[in-house]
Amino acid sequence: MSGLPETVLAELVGALGEDAVVTDPDILAAHSHDRASFCAAGVPAVLLRPRITDEVQRVMRIAHRHRVPVVPQGARTGLSGAANAVDGSILLSLARMNRILEIDTVNHLAVVEAGVVNSVLSEAVAEKGLFYPPDPSSWRESTIGGNIATNAGGLCCVKYGVTRQYVRQLEVVLADGELVTLGSRTAKGVAGLDLVGLMVGSEGTLGIITKAVLALRPAPRPALTAAALFTSPSAAMAAVEKIMSSSIQPSLLEFLDGVTVRAVQAYRDMGLPPEAEAMLIAQSDAADAARLVTEMAGICREAGAVEVAETDDPKEAEMLLEARRLVNPAVERLGTTLIEDVAVPRSRLVEFVEELGRIAERRKVIIACPGHVGDGNLHPTIIFDRNDEQARDRALLAFDDVMAAGLAVGGTITGEHGVGMLKRSWLSTELGPRVTALQVGIKRIFDPQGILNPGKVW
Amino acid sequence: MSGLPETVLAELVGALGEDAVVTDPDILAAHSHDRASFCAAGVPAVLLRPRITDEVQRVMRIAHRHRVPVVPQGARTGLSGAANAVDGSILLSLARMNRILEIDTVNHLAVVEAGVVNSVLSEAVAEKGLFYPPDPSSWRESTIGGNIATNAGGLCCVKYGVTRQYVRQLEVVLADGELVTLGSRTAKGVAGLDLVGLMVGSEGTLGIITKAVLALRPAPRPALTAAALFTSPSAAMAAVEKIMSSSIQPSLLEFLDGVTVRAVQAYRDMGLPPEAEAMLIAQSDAADAARLVTEMAGICREAGAVEVAETDDPKEAEMLLEARRLVNPAVERLGTTLIEDVAVPRSRLVEFVEELGRIAERRKVIIACPGHVGDGNLHPTIIFDRNDEQARDRALLAFDDVMAAGLAVGGTITGEHGVGMLKRSWLSTELGPRVTALQVGIKRIFDPQGILNPGKVW
Ligand SMILES: Cc1cc2nc3c(=O)[nH]c(=O)nc-3n(C[C@H](O)[C@H](O)[C@H](O)COP(=O)(O)OP(=O)(O)OC[C@H]3O[C@@H](n4cnc5c(N)ncnc54)[C@H](O)[C@@H]3O)c2cc1C
Ligand SMILES: Cc1cc2nc3c(=O)[nH]c(=O)nc-3n(C[C@H](O)[C@H](O)[C@H](O)COP(=O)(O)OP(=O)(O)OC[C@H]3O[C@@H](n4cnc5c(N)ncnc54)[C@H](O)[C@@H]3O)c2cc1C
Repeated sequence: MSGLPETVLAELVGALGEDAVVTDPDILAAHSHDRASFCAAGVPAVLLRPRITDEVQRVMRIAHRHRVPVVPQGARTGLSGAANAVDGSILLSLARMNRILEIDTVNHLAVVEAGVVNSVLSEAVAEKGLFYPPDPSSWRESTIGGNIATNAGGLCCVKYGVTRQYVRQLEVVLADGELVTLGSRTAKGVAGLDLVGLMVGSEGTLGIITKAVLALRPAPRPALTAAALFTSPSAAMAAVEKIMSSSIQPSLLEFLDGVTVRAVQAYRDMGLPPEAEAMLIAQSDAADAARLVTEMAGICREAGAVEVAETDDPKEAEMLLEARRLVNPAVERLGTTLIEDVAVPRSRLVEFVEELGRIAERRKVIIACPGHVGDGNLHPTIIFDRNDEQARDRALLAFDDVMAAGLAVGGTITGEHGVGMLKRSWLSTELGPRVTALQVGIKRIFDPQGILNPGKVW
Repeated sequence: MSGLPETVLAELVGALGEDAVVTDPDILAAHSHDRASFCAAGVPAVLLRPRITDEVQRVMRIAHRHRVPVVPQGARTGLSGAANAVDGSILLSLARMNRILEIDTVNHLAVVEAGVVNSVLSEAVAEKGLFYPPDPSSWRESTIGGNIATNAGGLCCVKYGVTRQYVRQLEVVLADGELVTLGSRTAKGVAGLDLVGLMVGSEGTLGIITKAVLALRPAPRPALTAAALFTSPSAAMAAVEKIMSSSIQPSLLEFLDGVTVRAVQAYRDMGLPPEAEAMLIAQSDAADAARLVTEMAGICREAGAVEVAETDDPKEAEMLLEARRLVNPAVERLGTTLIEDVAVPRSRLVEFVEELGRIAERRKVIIACPGHVGDGNLHPTIIFDRNDEQARDRALLAFDDVMAAGLAVGGTITGEHGVGMLKRSWLSTELGPRVTALQVGIKRIFDPQGILNPGKVW
């Protein structure tokens, strides 16, 4: 089941050298899944750690010849099981291909290998006065290749957009090992179909990304910050609607519901009052940020905020943001978590959040709900006791309810985490049969044998 | 050759009614090409003018059943022959589907039919304090459907990006008449492959766009403007490089070379001196625009500008921009024009423009070169005497030389006008055989019979 014929293994060792071919079962087990809970993971045959593109090509030629499934992996911080092992598969880790090849300060470009960690790139370009905006909260671990393959979002994409907007050109190894270059280094280009856009968010199903040319921006000004506490989520959502339909354009607008606020406060005393049922954190990095942040604070007050803090001091801002930063560890302390990623039109946020309350009640689960609210992208997090089988079943039902609620208000089942294995059964509900068939058709054009990350997405 | 069996015509009349089915040869001839010169156009069988999506579906079902080629058309302002008739084809004009269905001021969205003219939408959203950025110079004529199918750029995309960035969701009639919805209304979404991105720029080869959900932005501030004259294009390019690698982020940065400046001055006396070999027009609409425009003016002076004008008066700004607006009619007075659309990395602009001079000399043609220089997207325009056969041949050679020169400096053959028929023979040079094969494979998934705009792009 999980083995590869000795001859294939020997070919792989011949192609990459001993040290890049790992078969130790413990290491394989550790590498066989990402951070999504409740996603099946198969037993992989081998973990490969190439250092150069040529080695990736060799791997794919061998895999193609022997029809061995290949699962590309970055840092495995994914939250949809997209990087999980398939039985008998090659785990193809890009982590060692981690060189920043070029930072071009004239054209505002960076050229990087797929395994470069987001924060490493971000810090390197910041040193040159430049800015790579996509900032998933996993930025200290996740790779640019993984970010591209999931079209990662983050905190600042409410102003600066998601990963797609920053990918100009890709070097991709196709399923049969051929190396192609997609897109162009130029700021604009319409030479044929947009295959870069197709690769972005394709979750390892169309090809192995080995290199990327990324667009950079001038470094923004330091942001000014406001934070507000509300006694109801709908009051906070009313403020969000008002802010986002104004001309303010915040550079960050994050939401924490009451469950999340209390979890954070329990995790670390930040003086957050127990009666808070919602918190908003807003930033502006515009030239007139002082005015805009005051305006946002005012909107929060008008919407009924019980406490509003404003600061132009970076250290104080860090403290306000700290609440957001602590969400993951704080919520994880409450129990096992199942993290949703629904995005809805902003005008439907109140309705959606109210429905979450009803789902929690009906399914007898706790739902914490932090999120990138400026984009309408929430992460309702279902919390339950893993060892209680009934609780688990109820959690899974709640998980489905949340997606159904998102679709019902014109949303999507996934704003940034992707489909992977976790939401596979829901994808065709969102897309419909014909669009699903078009996507599967495209997949076959890239990968006729179906060896690239099989069992994911569709 | 150009006819359709009477029975098919009868089916079409039955489906759409008499008034939507045009067979008058003069009208057909007038509708059989776009604005690209030197692109072959076939003789169409019929022009159809549906008013609703259901009629578009009926047309495609009939075309599919009888394997009749269909050429989607917006306003036929295209510059690559992409909307040109194919022998015996149905010209499917979306022009009558021109309703703005919704302007959503909370979610910052517009929902429009494909035939809505860009300027009509832009003005309608401006009335509500909103902004639809893509502004091709053809905005008073071209349609949103055409803009999407070509991924149109424009003057403000140096700051605000091209059409792709503003298309959230599309309603598309597929080759066999089925109606699908691609993408999501939400600000973010990664449910499967990005088929919206694939449709954008697909030049009518994958499906008929009938409706679009577009993202809007808050209306920007009125822009402040600077204009500068130089005695060499390379001095202007040095200024461009400096401006674009600073943190200024102009909202417009346009270039006119000496030939273009003189053509404009001949067309209308704007006091532009004959010795000017380059002109830059720059704008900022930022909160601190006054400072930024002064900074850009300073950069121009340092780079050797012989005259620099700055204004915060909208009327004076209009006058400065007038030079840019008059480029098309002014250059057309010099002779027949063949308009290029190469985009190059900004750091290679000097090299590229110098090569243009050598090409003009070698091929004995005049090349005017206006362009969206902030994006590295130039429109070298080859001017010649259509009636002189040798001049025509030299012009065509120069046309090829310009694309080769663009590719040689890491550019693309088309920044915004698309491939159509004009650059078809060059596309595979840019893409290479494998990427071309992938694109053709995708085309077949959408259109197995090859009835959608055949003979275009690949
Ligand atoms: C604490 C935490 C916070 C997070 N916050 C965010 C957030 O704010 N926004 C957000 O969008 N996500 C977030 N995520 C999810 C995750 O970090 C992102 O999806 C990230 O982009 C995954 O990168 P990775 O390198 O870990 O990829 P992996 O998890 O290893 O892989 C993800 C997918 O990409 C594919 N892949 C990886 N590398 C390549 C390659 N080189 N070529 C082809 N395919 C490849 C894999 O096959 C898989 O399908 C978070 C995760 C955690 C654990
Ligand atoms: C004076 C002038 C200035 C211009 N300036 C610019 C500029 O600044 N930037 C720029 O990008 N372009 C510019 N153009 C080119 C042109 O205006 C654009 O390409 C525009 O987007 C075409 O829109 P249209 O409605 O005229 O489409 P058409 O020319 O009718 O069609 C263009 C392509 O789109 C397809 N198509 C049209 N509608 C649909 C639909 N509903 N569904 C599917 N396919 C469809 C057609 O088949 C064809 O392939 C300019 C042209 C002129 C004449």
